[in-house]
Amino acid sequence: MTRPASGLDLSLGDLCSATAFGWALRTFRNRAGRDGEPLLRQEGTFASLVLVGDATLALTSDGIGTKVEVAERTGTYHTLGWDLVAMVVDDLVALGVEPTNLTNILDVDTLDLGVVDALMRGLHDAAIAARVAVVGGEIAELGTRIGGWGPGMHFNWCATALGILPSGQPPLDGRAVRPGDALVALESPGLRSNGFSLARRVLSARHGEDWHLAPFEDGASWGEALLVPSRIYAPLVVDALTEGVPLHGVAHITGGGLPDKLGRVLKPNRLGALLDDLPPVPPVFARLVELGPVPSRQAWHLWNMGTGMVLVVPPDHASALCERAAAAGCPARVAGRIRESSGIEIQRDSEVLTYGD
Amino acid sequence: MTRPASGLDLSLGDLCSATAFGWALRTFRNRAGRDGEPLLRQEGTFASLVLVGDATLALTSDGIGTKVEVAERTGTYHTLGWDLVAMVVDDLVALGVEPTNLTNILDVDTLDLGVVDALMRGLHDAAIAARVAVVGGEIAELGTRIGGWGPGMHFNWCATALGILPSGQPPLDGRAVRPGDALVALESPGLRSNGFSLARRVLSARHGEDWHLAPFEDGASWGEALLVPSRIYAPLVVDALTEGVPLHGVAHITGGGLPDKLGRVLKPNRLGALLDDLPPVPPVFARLVELGPVPSRQAWHLWNMGTGMVLVVPPDHASALCERAAAAGCPARVAGRIRESSGIEIQRDSEVLTYGD
Repeated sequence: MTRPASGLDLSLGDLCSATAFGWALRTFRNRAGRDGEPLLRQEGTFASLVLVGDATLALTSDGIGTKVEVAERTGTYHTLGWDLVAMVVDDLVALGVEPTNLTNILDVDTLDLGVVDALMRGLHDAAIAARVAVVGGEIAELGTRIGGWGPGMHFNWCATALGILPSGQPPLDGRAVRPGDALVALESPGLRSNGFSLARRVLSARHGEDWHLAPFEDGASWGEALLVPSRIYAPLVVDALTEGVPLHGVAHITGGGLPDKLGRVLKPNRLGALLDDLPPVPPVFARLVELGPVPSRQAWHLWNMGTGMVLVVPPDHASALCERAAAAGCPARVAGRIRESSGIEIQRDSEVLTYGD
Repeated sequence: MTRPASGLDLSLGDLCSATAFGWALRTFRNRAGRDGEPLLRQEGTFASLVLVGDATLALTSDGIGTKVEVAERTGTYHTLGWDLVAMVVDDLVALGVEPTNLTNILDVDTLDLGVVDALMRGLHDAAIAARVAVVGGEIAELGTRIGGWGPGMHFNWCATALGILPSGQPPLDGRAVRPGDALVALESPGLRSNGFSLARRVLSARHGEDWHLAPFEDGASWGEALLVPSRIYAPLVVDALTEGVPLHGVAHITGGGLPDKLGRVLKPNRLGALLDDLPPVPPVFARLVELGPVPSRQAWHLWNMGTGMVLVVPPDHASALCERAAAAGCPARVAGRIRESSGIEIQRDSEVLTYGD
């Protein structure tokens, strides 16, 4: 939960989020000086850190949005658990917090035991990968309050993750970020759980209502291309922290893309970033941009474009961190560096995109 | 999350919950011996307790189901926060856990700033009453994946609560319950967030599609009668625990009613309960039973019938506990007692209902 930046171009969604945040903020006094005291480090950062006993915990909730429709279209359900777990555990680890537990709520119109089993199997697999224990769950039968694509069971799925900040470590809130730090990009093979509205718009304009059946490449359909599960970065980052890698900041690239999510890490120290060697843009994004056509600025704002997480480290730790990531099965590269001047500059081939001031 | 009792009469919902629980259980090894280790005390009890550092925490998630439709029908939104907070904090306190923090997810089709503001104001008010800080929130715009009644914004709303078990106290899992213990019933003025399917069925059969406009009593409509917000019991119970009242068990009466929820508290020690002086059945339930007509057994199984929580205490603490509850604004009475023989017996006027063996 973040307080949106103030400005004149607030969307209705931003206004609603700001309203919700305003009301939530007024509840913080409930736990002042007691277990559960929120650790609000500064305006604009996550409010999800709380003090309990001697520990600093974090709690974050999110859902997988309309990626569910792609599962409905393809009839493939067991990968969505990876998206759900990734959304919440990678938000926690972006604070330097080790995810430990997870609860989930599955809202359905009607029940299909096979679909539920596939979803929960996927949640299990992803939880094993993320090293979290699933300790709560609720399946709510809501009838016509839930809709979706085609016949059969439709659903919306969300989760909450709990985690703990390693003892003696400060939360990663951007204040440790220094000019000259290296930016290590962890690759993302496809869309995580955001940016589906634009993807659907592009594909349905080109391929019609049954866009998911249209060929993508190598015998795969567009449905399959959009369904590629999210990579879960948290264990890699937790291990790096545990073994003393001096991470200065972590950006989990979801809605808002690199500009917003890396921007949040840069904000506390009013720094900027040059990204001149990002990972190759995966075909799914390149083809969507071409089909739209989608303006580059919009694409980088709504999609991860192949970078799912950015780790900020002192430059002398960068190549070892890349090797560590690769050994953990996640291709990574030094994609750029922190600089004094504010704003984010993305250089790709002959194109230069700048965000912020 | 509970493992449903095995049996031949499992509903599809039970089967789906059992499947989800089975997969979740296999993730527990992820945290064995580490922060976040689930404290699974025995099969059939909540799995929501986890060990973190020296503390025992609990995490629970739930939503307010189709009570939302009643808000849509009446255009009154600010009370739903009480239902949402009650669902999760009162599940925590039933474990002896003090609720500390809350996150929420609001899934919407379209946004209406006025509705969002009313919901979040209600969440704030209820959080203040429940003494929890709201530290996370997400508003997800899901378009046609969300449906509801009439024009305007439709939504589904769920929350996760975090709490801590007071140091040195065991969780309330029913094992402390003794024959002869008193059962203190805390009154509930109306429906909490369950039992709305049956209520709607009864009312639409009698009053048609616009049943919410039909008169209930004293100038109030049926819509208003069903919307009465949930009472939040947690602070009362937390204070009792803090001040040393020896609570042996707590049952939060939601779906499954007194038979299921008190039954869960009785199960570990294979005890029974006689309820021969329950609070008066509030008019909303009495009228629904009459209109249906709804068989008594079904009514007591699906609705709280005027008792929202049952506290199990040694008999010599019962009247003081009732006074404490009344002083906190919650009418209460000694409604019965624990007995050796298993099963739950509800005596009301000339009627006797028995559940279990």
